[in-house]
Amino acid sequence: MELTNEQKTEIEAARDSQSQTRRATVPELEEILYEPIPVLDHGLVRVIDYMGDDAAIVQAARVSYGKGTKKVSDDAGLIKYLLRHRHTTPFEMCEIKFHIKLPIFIARQWIRHRTANVNEYSARYSMLDREFYIPAEDQLAAQASNNRQGRGDLLSGEEAARVLDLLKSDAEKTYDHYVEMLNEDEEGNIIDKNRDGLARELARMNLTLNAYTQWYWKIDLHNLLHFLLLRADSHAQYEIRVYAEAILETVKRWVPTAHDAFMEYRVGGVGLSAKALEVVKKLIAGAEVSQKESGISPREWRELMVTLDREG
Amino acid sequence: MELTNEQKTEIEAARDSQSQTRRATVPELEEILYEPIPVLDHGLVRVIDYMGDDAAIVQAARVSYGKGTKKVSDDAGLIKYLLRHRHTTPFEMCEIKFHIKLPIFIARQWIRHRTANVNEYSARYSMLDREFYIPAEDQLAAQASNNRQGRGDLLSGEEAARVLDLLKSDAEKTYDHYVEMLNEDEEGNIIDKNRDGLARELARMNLTLNAYTQWYWKIDLHNLLHFLLLRADSHAQYEIRVYAEAILETVKRWVPTAHDAFMEYRVGGVGLSAKALEVVKKLIAGAEVSQKESGISPREWRELMVTLDREG
Amino acid sequence: MELTNEQKTEIEAARDSQSQTRRATVPELEEILYEPIPVLDHGLVRVIDYMGDDAAIVQAARVSYGKGTKKVSDDAGLIKYLLRHRHTTPFEMCEIKFHIKLPIFIARQWIRHRTANVNEYSARYSMLDREFYIPAEDQLAAQASNNRQGRGDLLSGEEAARVLDLLKSDAEKTYDHYVEMLNEDEEGNIIDKNRDGLARELARMNLTLNAYTQWYWKIDLHNLLHFLLLRADSHAQYEIRVYAEAILETVKRWVPTAHDAFMEYRVGGVGLSAKALEVVKKLIAGAEVSQKESGISPREWRELMVTLDREG
Amino acid sequence: MELTNEQKTEIEAARDSQSQTRRATVPELEEILYEPIPVLDHGLVRVIDYMGDDAAIVQAARVSYGKGTKKVSDDAGLIKYLLRHRHTTPFEMCEIKFHIKLPIFIARQWIRHRTANVNEYSARYSMLDREFYIPAEDQLAAQASNNRQGRGDLLSGEEAARVLDLLKSDAEKTYDHYVEMLNEDEEGNIIDKNRDGLARELARMNLTLNAYTQWYWKIDLHNLLHFLLLRADSHAQYEIRVYAEAILETVKRWVPTAHDAFMEYRVGGVGLSAKALEVVKKLIAGAEVSQKESGISPREWRELMVTLDREG
Repeated sequence: MELTNEQKTEIEAARDSQSQTRRATVPELEEILYEPIPVLDHGLVRVIDYMGDDAAIVQAARVSYGKGTKKVSDDAGLIKYLLRHRHTTPFEMCEIKFHIKLPIFIARQWIRHRTANVNEYSARYSMLDREFYIPAEDQLAAQASNNRQGRGDLLSGEEAARVLDLLKSDAEKTYDHYVEMLNEDEEGNIIDKNRDGLARELARMNLTLNAYTQWYWKIDLHNLLHFLLLRADSHAQYEIRVYAEAILETVKRWVPTAHDAFMEYRVGGVGLSAKALEVVKKLIAGAEVSQKESGISPREWRELMVTLDREG
Repeated sequence: MELTNEQKTEIEAARDSQSQTRRATVPELEEILYEPIPVLDHGLVRVIDYMGDDAAIVQAARVSYGKGTKKVSDDAGLIKYLLRHRHTTPFEMCEIKFHIKLPIFIARQWIRHRTANVNEYSARYSMLDREFYIPAEDQLAAQASNNRQGRGDLLSGEEAARVLDLLKSDAEKTYDHYVEMLNEDEEGNIIDKNRDGLARELARMNLTLNAYTQWYWKIDLHNLLHFLLLRADSHAQYEIRVYAEAILETVKRWVPTAHDAFMEYRVGGVGLSAKALEVVKKLIAGAEVSQKESGISPREWRELMVTLDREG
Repeated sequence: MELTNEQKTEIEAARDSQSQTRRATVPELEEILYEPIPVLDHGLVRVIDYMGDDAAIVQAARVSYGKGTKKVSDDAGLIKYLLRHRHTTPFEMCEIKFHIKLPIFIARQWIRHRTANVNEYSARYSMLDREFYIPAEDQLAAQASNNRQGRGDLLSGEEAARVLDLLKSDAEKTYDHYVEMLNEDEEGNIIDKNRDGLARELARMNLTLNAYTQWYWKIDLHNLLHFLLLRADSHAQYEIRVYAEAILETVKRWVPTAHDAFMEYRVGGVGLSAKALEVVKKLIAGAEVSQKESGISPREWRELMVTLDREG
Repeated sequence: MELTNEQKTEIEAARDSQSQTRRATVPELEEILYEPIPVLDHGLVRVIDYMGDDAAIVQAARVSYGKGTKKVSDDAGLIKYLLRHRHTTPFEMCEIKFHIKLPIFIARQWIRHRTANVNEYSARYSMLDREFYIPAEDQLAAQASNNRQGRGDLLSGEEAARVLDLLKSDAEKTYDHYVEMLNEDEEGNIIDKNRDGLARELARMNLTLNAYTQWYWKIDLHNLLHFLLLRADSHAQYEIRVYAEAILETVKRWVPTAHDAFMEYRVGGVGLSAKALEVVKKLIAGAEVSQKESGISPREWRELMVTLDREG
């Protein structure tokens, strides 16, 4: 990811400006405020603003429970309790805003999370930059054979080289034609005075889905944790997972106690169905259980055995 | 509204604590941060936290429109443009959090605005305080004769006195019985060791709807302006309007440019139907138009004439 | 719950009217369409309309997964898979609308679920009926000693009698005064021609929180299941749980396959934290684990032991 | 838009199947249920299911207003009143579900409306079809000179021909390479046994933004009308406007009274700012007003004069 000099100057100015505030402030997050965290080949994540901290979660919970929480003297214990019992509203009292630059096909996955505020760069108004996501070689994987939506082994060197070549040349060529249709170069100058140039809202359709877009994305902590649970997960597509992982690091700086509870109860936790719980109880009692008598389907059984570190 | 000494101490401590931040900061709002603004007889509004300012709206719009907004050098002009054309997403980039104390029957109206985050004091966990809304005499109005949901003339002195007496004595008596059923006094001591006391989640049902509750309420600026448009309006019930007006003052401190545009285009603006627009054009052309030939219903016609300051 | 003759006639008329439709139709749900299901002493739940069925969930999933789901020939298997892996959007493709009559203090809990459409009877427009929730004697429980928000043992006969007496007489008396302040009897006649009567929007504040209100409530299946998970749970307050249980029965008629998967994976399922999973693995391996060495708090440990049917 | 024979058979089967229902049914909408309405070159809109009708709006309003609406005997009058005064919740009681096939760059605009339920065809699971949006010649317009986001005059024949050639050849070529990278032909057969084929979730990034996708889209009537207000508007991009117009026709069949009120009060209506209202009053009074003394900006003044059919 390369920033223009203008962008670097803006970021530095924002970082240099300090104000006095009576609001809750988190020094660990302030440290990286506005600073771009590189993701993929041209992408980035930047924290632009935030509201609240771990104490704001506790404070909201204490409003709800009133004198009833006086005895829980330990804030970390209360946050764990809230997360464990899915008392989610106190987590909604914290809010964070990011600037994110990401490939369009990933933006299309991301936007399905509807509980956020978004301002995206509009290619109806302005020209998109000549930047495309080209996977690193160690990400050029074949379709998984056992999973309709996953990746399998890496492609061979020869096949990988061909794929890279196609991705690069198609992105470049369609972008060249985008510029030609617009009749406007990347500095905004008209190319050919004898042509009108196609409207931006039409020309953009010639770009490939790995072109980069960017947006401001604002979300409350509860909904952010839900996003991270799905997108920082090993089943998520690599290209969105790396963004989720970068965001997870900023959450750790921002609300470390909530972050730890999230890792313990959500990310590291598992769900057992009613039948799976019966199997677990029998196994603990030393009994043998087979998939057949468990009433669990073969696929779920395999998943359960993996969860329990057992041979199926 | 009276605060306990404990609350006053907490507020003072929060106000005294100052931190350095790189975030956008609004000194006019910081001035009143955490400070209770009295509303009704025992209610309050307090700004607890905020994110963003007028510049954050502009910044989000510029992300969307990219180079396309470079020419609009004037931030106020851009904010007006956004509000006028209902480009609402940049306003969602600002967020504010309030502490509000309000009568339950008003809380029930308020909560119908679903696009906010709420943590309400729970009467399942804790006892409610002995505080009820009793209208001032100049609010004791009769049912409007021409409007199913409004107020008409003030009640006569005698009728008003009787109403006040009933409201006060019923609220006090039902609260006394609430305490008796709980078997717990307002300091949390058991009243009668020989009784168990009814569960709080049941006893609360004996309270009247003018009992006060409180909550933290967090909302983005776009949705807040929508709330204010409906609730600071002259058709809104007085008891919610006074809260909306108090909040509107905090908005003026927080985002003065957005506030002014809101007053000009929403609060002071009007909508004309297709047929009403035709009438306006004819009137400007000096023609006479009657309700009958306008195709507009008598009721709408009257409203239109009021809007245009004309005799019906 | 008593219906007026007018209501009974309306319900019969709606039930008698039959149309031809090309839409997905569920005969088991049609059987009870419009019919009131009694809840509590005066409450009710009625299914008023619905959209979609089990097949609509499957159909939506197949749109998403395209040719990729051709091999999953079994609809029930697909629905289970979706629910287990929290692929929630296909469940949003089914919608249901209820008419519900419920005490106001329960309505206040209910409305916190923000992802539904609601039209509530407005006491600003119209007078509320003289109906209050009075708990049955087997529900008059003391505050739980070990849980801030639950119920413990039943009250003794004498204390229970006193509570019932207070609840009834306060509800009746405040309603009497509501009528007096309105100066309008329950048939809508003016009581005293020499008085104006207080505006409805004010008079309503004198009612107690066990007065009944009613609303239309429309929600998609995904959000309904989330509501039911929280409210049909044993930790939910009894007075909302009975509504959730009545609704759960209608869900069983409507989408029996989704209902079964919900019971297996959500209602009957459990969540284990990362540390709890480690404990389970050790127990299965035949090792002994103590609370102390598990790193789990005493409270969570007790909960885990209950989940696993073990002595703490 | 061409349907496969399989799709045609499915649609016919769905249309032939008739059931008895007690639900509100709209024969005019049933007539076209499941039937594809062609949009653009390969797109479509189909109504798949619906809940409610004009009467359901009225019914919900009457629940809210109780006895208070008894006097409004006229349903059309009530629906107009609700829409005019932005009492929006009764419109949320109707729901409709569409199957929509549309170009990806339009899908990206569309999805910004967050208050709908969506299941989109996933190119992680399945291959996309070889279908791209290529504008008709009468849509190949230049960038508007006076509007950053609009279209101006049509391109000349020569420039248009070049643009069409680029759009077609780039879409075809990137699709060819998509197939090659997948190593799977459009019937799902492996092309070259010696290659593995790139994972679908990666290969899709090589497609251009005019490739077609499809989804199920379910929304309530209130939010649908908001979508239509923005997207059936003359300022909306042509390629989304044609979808909005097709949907508007289905709304006319479904809820004709609400449709008419929407056309009168929203689509045909205008908003006036506080200052614009002052200008209108002066003009009606026969006074002259200049832009300068109005306090209105030149741009808004021009818009106002257009609204009032006057020379600026």
